[in-house]
Amino acid sequence: MTEPAQRLHLPEQGLDALLVSSPANIRYLTGFTGSNALLLVGEKTVLFTDPRYRLQAAAECPCHVRVERGSLLVAAAGWVRRKPIHRLGFERAHLSYESFLALGSHLPSGVDLTPLAGHVEALRMIKSPQEIELIRCSVKLNSQAFARCLRSVRPGITELDLAAEIDHQMRKLGAEKQAFETIVASGLRSALPHASPTSKTLAANELLLIDMGAVRDGYSSDMTRMAFLGRPGAQVRQRYRAVVEAQLAAIDVVREGVSAEAVDRAARRVLKAHKLDRAFVHSAGHGLGLEIHEAPRLGRGEKTRLKAGMAITIEPGVYLQEFGGIRIEDTVVVTRTGCEILTPTSKELVSL
Amino acid sequence: MTEPAQRLHLPEQGLDALLVSSPANIRYLTGFTGSNALLLVGEKTVLFTDPRYRLQAAAECPCHVRVERGSLLVAAAGWVRRKPIHRLGFERAHLSYESFLALGSHLPSGVDLTPLAGHVEALRMIKSPQEIELIRCSVKLNSQAFARCLRSVRPGITELDLAAEIDHQMRKLGAEKQAFETIVASGLRSALPHASPTSKTLAANELLLIDMGAVRDGYSSDMTRMAFLGRPGAQVRQRYRAVVEAQLAAIDVVREGVSAEAVDRAARRVLKAHKLDRAFVHSAGHGLGLEIHEAPRLGRGEKTRLKAGMAITIEPGVYLQEFGGIRIEDTVVVTRTGCEILTPTSKELVSL
Repeated sequence: MTEPAQRLHLPEQGLDALLVSSPANIRYLTGFTGSNALLLVGEKTVLFTDPRYRLQAAAECPCHVRVERGSLLVAAAGWVRRKPIHRLGFERAHLSYESFLALGSHLPSGVDLTPLAGHVEALRMIKSPQEIELIRCSVKLNSQAFARCLRSVRPGITELDLAAEIDHQMRKLGAEKQAFETIVASGLRSALPHASPTSKTLAANELLLIDMGAVRDGYSSDMTRMAFLGRPGAQVRQRYRAVVEAQLAAIDVVREGVSAEAVDRAARRVLKAHKLDRAFVHSAGHGLGLEIHEAPRLGRGEKTRLKAGMAITIEPGVYLQEFGGIRIEDTVVVTRTGCEILTPTSKELVSL
Repeated sequence: MTEPAQRLHLPEQGLDALLVSSPANIRYLTGFTGSNALLLVGEKTVLFTDPRYRLQAAAECPCHVRVERGSLLVAAAGWVRRKPIHRLGFERAHLSYESFLALGSHLPSGVDLTPLAGHVEALRMIKSPQEIELIRCSVKLNSQAFARCLRSVRPGITELDLAAEIDHQMRKLGAEKQAFETIVASGLRSALPHASPTSKTLAANELLLIDMGAVRDGYSSDMTRMAFLGRPGAQVRQRYRAVVEAQLAAIDVVREGVSAEAVDRAARRVLKAHKLDRAFVHSAGHGLGLEIHEAPRLGRGEKTRLKAGMAITIEPGVYLQEFGGIRIEDTVVVTRTGCEILTPTSKELVSL
């Protein structure tokens, strides 16, 4: 059995092989960074890709590589046909209905197709020490880029230009790209939790929300910080403190064994005391790694128990249409006794 | 019937409603730019999204908006249950096997689920005059960014830094983001058709391949140009001329009524005369618009007939492991009598 096959415990799953179609899962198992591939994990592990990636796949993947001019799915089915594979798993969340049909139609009738849910993702939830180092580097880079960009924050600059400056600083510091579209939302626009930056200019006496993440060596970071252009009034300071308190309360409960929903609940309880819980319209955080959103989700009803080595964000926020939004977000790593906050950036409300 | 329902000819498809799950298709039909939504097109058209997008969806979408805290799929199935919908279409390429199962399990037994392939995409292939203007603006911006970045091309700069500079110029010129990860590949690395930029420095007497695209107002552009750091020798000039000749030959056959494969064949024929056809490892181009890769694909065996209003790339290339790669790419719009080349950038080999 190949090393990926052992890690995936295929025999325990009743499988002879698993067809992996999620690009992040393929990268996790093989190191391949191209955009088009299928991975068949079994007695032998084979990566199927197209001719554009011939040299790259050979350089990156320790496994056998097949370069195909036609459909990768048909090629993988052909491989299965020629091997003693009777029980083939596939990733139910990462194969389209169309590809599922095509796969089935190219397999001989004796092959059972078994849908698996989140199988590789379950491995990916627990980061290795090497992965945590990569996330730490990504988080550090992200915070450095934030610090450099604070100079550019002034009335008159547009959200779009500030976002462009943030992204440029990330890249100059060695990021491959942003982990997601950088959010720069000023004034009442900060009440849109996922606001795309616009040509609105930053104005005096406005809230400014910056949510940014870098990808470095494939691994993501994620941080949200707030600034105020001027001297914040009592209401802004009070609500800002409430969100800091909620964020710290959530961080405080993080440790191995605690359920994901308990972290969310801790933040929600604090916001409720401030009568702000109804303005907290998303969950308290999410795992991150090769993707910006990974398991576990830290939200209501999420029973997953935290484990040492999980990398997660903690990001409560409140959004009020007539006031604006406030969110504070760190990336932390779960440990047996608590967590390590990777994000070095201060949580003081930046007043500019 | 709502306007999207009419455009999609649902009755002719034997459908009462269509569940649209591709974000680009949802944007095309409604204008919604958020990342999480489902669209049910029928007697009434309804967008389902989560609370993060409450305000944004209301501002962007002319249709009815339902904000859901739980699964959007379950919410859409619940809506179908309460309406006289018996034949529900779904997008087979854009619904995962998992979501297909979930949808089926939440619908009453009287509802027939019908997989559709490329139905909205077929509409999207033919761009409206407004869409062509948006693509034209995106192409122009992209070419301006290229011109600004040529100053930065010099021995000693890394591929990564040059790519960062390109992306920054795009953003300063008003792009929302890159249409894809900018390719900057120098020397022998240009033989990797989809090379990610690395820390390799540009050196004298090397080929440099730059493949870049911007997204502006949601619409993509795509261009590849070559430079040489020094005076190119006879072999580089000869092969460069062969690729230019192939690209012009392909552009020359583009017009309404011609098959997509005929465009690819025209490029391949020229490269064959130069004994370079085996080094042309991808297809001659692709449609673009709200996505960077759309129908039609201009490759072997593609029978789709070109139609006026299609926006496509024309991008033959040759890749030789011991020599490097050469690709030249423009964005063009098909017309009844030929095509309009949108890309204003010169195709002279830039010698720096």
